[in-house]
Amino acid sequence: MHSPLATRYASLRAHSLKLAAPLTAEDQCVQSMPDASPSKWHLAHTTWFFENLVLLPHLPGYTVFDTSFAYLFNSYYEALGPRHPRMQRGLLTRPSLSQVWAYRAHVDEAMQRLLSNTMPINDDALALVELGLNHEQQHQELLLTDALHLLSCNPLLPAYDAAFVHPKASVVESQWLSFDEGLRTLGRSTDTPGFAFDNESPSHQRFVQRFKMTNRLVTCGEYLAFIQDGGYEDADLWLSEGRAQVLQHHWQHPLYWLAPHDPRAPAEHWQVFGLNGVQALDPDAPVAHLSFYEASAYAQWAGARLPTEFEWETANAEADMHDVQGHVWQWTRSAYEPYPGFVPSSGAVREYNGKFMVGQQVLRGSSLATPHQHSRATYRNFFPAAARWQFSGLRLAKDN
Amino acid sequence: MHSPLATRYASLRAHSLKLAAPLTAEDQCVQSMPDASPSKWHLAHTTWFFENLVLLPHLPGYTVFDTSFAYLFNSYYEALGPRHPRMQRGLLTRPSLSQVWAYRAHVDEAMQRLLSNTMPINDDALALVELGLNHEQQHQELLLTDALHLLSCNPLLPAYDAAFVHPKASVVESQWLSFDEGLRTLGRSTDTPGFAFDNESPSHQRFVQRFKMTNRLVTCGEYLAFIQDGGYEDADLWLSEGRAQVLQHHWQHPLYWLAPHDPRAPAEHWQVFGLNGVQALDPDAPVAHLSFYEASAYAQWAGARLPTEFEWETANAEADMHDVQGHVWQWTRSAYEPYPGFVPSSGAVREYNGKFMVGQQVLRGSSLATPHQHSRATYRNFFPAAARWQFSGLRLAKDN
Amino acid sequence: MHSPLATRYASLRAHSLKLAAPLTAEDQCVQSMPDASPSKWHLAHTTWFFENLVLLPHLPGYTVFDTSFAYLFNSYYEALGPRHPRMQRGLLTRPSLSQVWAYRAHVDEAMQRLLSNTMPINDDALALVELGLNHEQQHQELLLTDALHLLSCNPLLPAYDAAFVHPKASVVESQWLSFDEGLRTLGRSTDTPGFAFDNESPSHQRFVQRFKMTNRLVTCGEYLAFIQDGGYEDADLWLSEGRAQVLQHHWQHPLYWLAPHDPRAPAEHWQVFGLNGVQALDPDAPVAHLSFYEASAYAQWAGARLPTEFEWETANAEADMHDVQGHVWQWTRSAYEPYPGFVPSSGAVREYNGKFMVGQQVLRGSSLATPHQHSRATYRNFFPAAARWQFSGLRLAKDN
Amino acid sequence: MHSPLATRYASLRAHSLKLAAPLTAEDQCVQSMPDASPSKWHLAHTTWFFENLVLLPHLPGYTVFDTSFAYLFNSYYEALGPRHPRMQRGLLTRPSLSQVWAYRAHVDEAMQRLLSNTMPINDDALALVELGLNHEQQHQELLLTDALHLLSCNPLLPAYDAAFVHPKASVVESQWLSFDEGLRTLGRSTDTPGFAFDNESPSHQRFVQRFKMTNRLVTCGEYLAFIQDGGYEDADLWLSEGRAQVLQHHWQHPLYWLAPHDPRAPAEHWQVFGLNGVQALDPDAPVAHLSFYEASAYAQWAGARLPTEFEWETANAEADMHDVQGHVWQWTRSAYEPYPGFVPSSGAVREYNGKFMVGQQVLRGSSLATPHQHSRATYRNFFPAAARWQFSGLRLAKDN
Repeated sequence: MHSPLATRYASLRAHSLKLAAPLTAEDQCVQSMPDASPSKWHLAHTTWFFENLVLLPHLPGYTVFDTSFAYLFNSYYEALGPRHPRMQRGLLTRPSLSQVWAYRAHVDEAMQRLLSNTMPINDDALALVELGLNHEQQHQELLLTDALHLLSCNPLLPAYDAAFVHPKASVVESQWLSFDEGLRTLGRSTDTPGFAFDNESPSHQRFVQRFKMTNRLVTCGEYLAFIQDGGYEDADLWLSEGRAQVLQHHWQHPLYWLAPHDPRAPAEHWQVFGLNGVQALDPDAPVAHLSFYEASAYAQWAGARLPTEFEWETANAEADMHDVQGHVWQWTRSAYEPYPGFVPSSGAVREYNGKFMVGQQVLRGSSLATPHQHSRATYRNFFPAAARWQFSGLRLAKDN
Repeated sequence: MHSPLATRYASLRAHSLKLAAPLTAEDQCVQSMPDASPSKWHLAHTTWFFENLVLLPHLPGYTVFDTSFAYLFNSYYEALGPRHPRMQRGLLTRPSLSQVWAYRAHVDEAMQRLLSNTMPINDDALALVELGLNHEQQHQELLLTDALHLLSCNPLLPAYDAAFVHPKASVVESQWLSFDEGLRTLGRSTDTPGFAFDNESPSHQRFVQRFKMTNRLVTCGEYLAFIQDGGYEDADLWLSEGRAQVLQHHWQHPLYWLAPHDPRAPAEHWQVFGLNGVQALDPDAPVAHLSFYEASAYAQWAGARLPTEFEWETANAEADMHDVQGHVWQWTRSAYEPYPGFVPSSGAVREYNGKFMVGQQVLRGSSLATPHQHSRATYRNFFPAAARWQFSGLRLAKDN
Repeated sequence: MHSPLATRYASLRAHSLKLAAPLTAEDQCVQSMPDASPSKWHLAHTTWFFENLVLLPHLPGYTVFDTSFAYLFNSYYEALGPRHPRMQRGLLTRPSLSQVWAYRAHVDEAMQRLLSNTMPINDDALALVELGLNHEQQHQELLLTDALHLLSCNPLLPAYDAAFVHPKASVVESQWLSFDEGLRTLGRSTDTPGFAFDNESPSHQRFVQRFKMTNRLVTCGEYLAFIQDGGYEDADLWLSEGRAQVLQHHWQHPLYWLAPHDPRAPAEHWQVFGLNGVQALDPDAPVAHLSFYEASAYAQWAGARLPTEFEWETANAEADMHDVQGHVWQWTRSAYEPYPGFVPSSGAVREYNGKFMVGQQVLRGSSLATPHQHSRATYRNFFPAAARWQFSGLRLAKDN
Repeated sequence: MHSPLATRYASLRAHSLKLAAPLTAEDQCVQSMPDASPSKWHLAHTTWFFENLVLLPHLPGYTVFDTSFAYLFNSYYEALGPRHPRMQRGLLTRPSLSQVWAYRAHVDEAMQRLLSNTMPINDDALALVELGLNHEQQHQELLLTDALHLLSCNPLLPAYDAAFVHPKASVVESQWLSFDEGLRTLGRSTDTPGFAFDNESPSHQRFVQRFKMTNRLVTCGEYLAFIQDGGYEDADLWLSEGRAQVLQHHWQHPLYWLAPHDPRAPAEHWQVFGLNGVQALDPDAPVAHLSFYEASAYAQWAGARLPTEFEWETANAEADMHDVQGHVWQWTRSAYEPYPGFVPSSGAVREYNGKFMVGQQVLRGSSLATPHQHSRATYRNFFPAAARWQFSGLRLAKDN
């Protein structure tokens, strides 16, 4: 008889395979850029996590599927030994996708044994299972964004799934919501039941100055107006590093936008490549695939600025904001830093979040690629300021 | 008859030439790395600032020294037109150093006319003169650090000035000072008389959690213990990006340290290259020429962490800390971000600070290379986390 | 009823698929370095050649399989329009391998129609068919060498085919064969029946000085003696560019050799990765996977030099040399240049050879990966001096 | 009393200083690209040659000027120990130019002692002195071409010497000279009195096919016609590597040409930067500053080809060609390879030529920057095919 956790485990794990299903073995093998990983690697690495962090320490008698996988599918855990270089994940044509499927089945079977009602299971193990499931959800999102990047590199621009349906965002007037200054309690209390990542804690007090935030996301139509007003050419709007990126990479619009021959042409001549292939640009859809630099330049152009993550969390708690989750991650003005009193998890998973706390920006909310119920109000996503291949957009803030 | 400002101007400008005096025309021409600039360029660019931002708009009848200099010696002011690429500053063997001296004399003479008591001078102009002087002081520091880097690239390791005297830091026991949690008013009020950069304002409230900070700087002797304990090899101590830098650049000790044949040898076998040439390592001297990553790894090793810039400013206001100024800039855990309500200066100088507010870390205090009275309690210096050629060290903090 | 040419076409084309058969779809999709191409790309590009150079101009009513393939699978023919960048061949996860098989079947069917006895076929078309077949053979060899490189990048070191049998080279004493000086007629006469590439012609007179050449190939055992005598460390043996490569890439032995922990250990501790996987080093086997620089340094160490391609062709014509074909390509001292009176083929295939005649070295003979009967005495293979992933070895020459 | 050799030594050495005289100490210190060296380095390195190869072994009691110079100013002689990296020659702001002058004086004084009539001097030493003088002449040419490159990187485009007079080339109709096929004796006999480099020998027989060559150099006016006919855009004219260079570096005309706003404008709107600064393009002047690729593409466009170095030497011996010496080096179709029977010089100078015999093309003749009487009919200059900063042009050949 299965425990609820065992059922949830099985369902969540199956979802990864479902997400990969539209992709061929070839699609799942190739690495399109250093930041992205092959789908096959995602499928294997999430399995590696359960094998190495849960099964080996906690399931007596567990037999390793293949001893070489500890090396091949470790991502960045120094404590767990050497690993295959990140840049060369796409060279792993072996093990084959079928072998990775077999690896998943082997580990899943052992996990079901571990999670079955007949075995005692300690809290440490349970915490690692929970972490492993949330980890798998993060890779489910990356599997989609990395696949989209790969397909975008193909001159044929094949759709991941022509029937993929994008969620419809609210079509409402943009309004400024106002927030008073004052001390807020932000972040996640370690007493709150349910899972959260270590970087969301501890809950702590923070003084937030008066500010305003818009009730909805910036749309493609609004962003197109910025483009057509010369936004990419006006150095005054850009952070210095952003300007350098624009010039070096010849950015003229968000990633995956396909410009018409005459970029001054109206919205109906623009197209966007997405999970459902090439589609007409929808002016009402939230703009996505922006770098932090572009989001920041847009805000400057709009007479506003990006919110801090603390303003975002405050506004989310105190007001009625549309489309907070499930459309696009929202860049914030906040660098990814530890909260006051931050304590990393212990064991190998101490490397999960803490060691990345420099040189990245926080995004809040979640995107259409984020698994259901994975994100929450205190969730902190983070990417380098130049990253564009996530579903990353923005909402605006300003001083009050 | 000279005004006090005219006198200060003359004295401060003369100091730049004095700092460059130990360097030959050849030394002053070469660029040793993209981040560093030739001394001659510093001497010319600071002069360009006065010519383009003060004299041209504010001194009627001013005659430009050489029209090509507007292009050659603009650093990054997009609003003031195109400029010579930063990476190629070292190719400017012409104009010669003598011509740059003549340029300085020409501009200084005009500035004396502007600042003489007989001419009315408006507040805008005065503010720009003040900014220009502080700008010149920043380049005085860079002139020294860039010259040191250049000389360090020479196998002969020539001294900038064999008689240069390093300030002696306090030799005291390291003690933990404790600070209570609470709201603090931090940053610089725009009402405070005297000069400050726009990035230090506005004064604002911030909640600071309980913390401890050490009363003195980390020393070379302490840092050597970290090295000899295998600190550079222990991945667990490092931020992920820092670890990558260590491996890529084969960092094994601070920049400018000269390791003995056997790096396990005691302190007396180590040497340091500095402005006075190659000297024995002084275990009591504050450690310098660390990247943010090294400072962070050291703190981790020492069971502590780096302070935020807000903790630093709080501690500086409320307790007796040694060697806050004049030894080494102190890395903080804080990314360089705008303060709540930050408003850049207007005019071309709006580009002075705001556009660099991403991807860098704040340092507080000042170094032995910082001109006298240039820094202050609210001063925010900033460099990329990998920068090592400044006199950058640390003091420790921890949660209480 | 099939013509002999149609039969040969079918057989040769089927051989390509047979060579690719041990590789999975994943193996066939990935590009392991800029110089190598995915197997799938080889299969498609050779088909593209027949479609674009033979069928479209010469088979009335031929229907293009897929119009996008003209772009995707053009290699470097400027005259045939723009093409997918060479460096990004590995990103083409679509079209799938199955689609490429269908492409081959489609083109092969049309080619059979063209070559059937019932249709008249002109000499131009015949010449292009012949060229296309030889072109396919060249890619058959590259398919093997590129697959070997890919598999070598995989930490699992999977065998291409564990049952692959390497040809046995003659085990004979090395002897110096002597050749008199005199005029020789070298190169291929355009009157000679049978196929040859344009770069082998015209036949021309050349004065060859007295020289000696060894009767057999340099062996792995001999090359190991060079390694163990410090050959890779002795700058005196190396061309300046070769020395730079050694230092930059840390070359210490031929590509695909696996050194024992102690590189001074005898031959039985060394291994070699090849098409049949990891095997013990065979001291009697011809050494392979050398760059020109390594071949040249070895020759220097052995008190000899590499032969010119003219010496090679002379010796091949006049003496009994062992293992001229079918083991390893033999580096020559000759840069790849046009013969006196060289005239490129006409039409798009004028780009086949001529435009590469600078910056490469000639290799003579053929390797174990070369299709049967593809090479000949006048055949000129060419690669950059640093290339190591071909089966490239050497024989020695010296002045007499 | 001075020997004739001592007098020649003094005169030739003084000429180096004269060539450097228009350059400031700053000009002489900077390295504008990896291929070029600072003038100061040229002045020191040529002196290093005499000190290390002549004085130390052959002048008893000679005192080294500065022991660090052996490291600083060795160019590439592995046999003479480690050396300062080539890419970092421009970082040597010390020793100063004055110290290098003192170094020259010190060595020159010792050389005068060695060469004075009162001392016996052996043939080995004499041969090295002769080599040192020819070596110095080569660096005299590089001093000019490297200085020109540096000045060209300066937006001010300062003249090396505004009074520098370019030699006038013959203004004659271009004519095809015809040469019969047959055996020629080419190269330099080692019995010929007078100096030659080892790479010019031995004299040897070579069969040369019938060919034609033009009696004069290709002019700027002719080359401009190629540009304006779209020569840089027509892939069909270019070697594959050349085409890649054109696209990568956006080549549209020879190095140092300044295009008018409309590149279709006639010759009088074009300018050229040269040793005398910016001048109007002279359509009758020989075209210079071409890469091998551009020379080859021009020849292709003109229905011709580049000559081999053997054709060049044949034509030079047998016909009346204009402007063979003293205008521009003439690219040949020949890769730089050893002559049959080539034997490098012995001792450290064995590294002088032989180790560069791969990956470069031979140029024949000499340029306006070549010292008087330095070149000769058998002289072989060599540069990589992409090099453009020499005074390199071409004359045409074709099959007969």
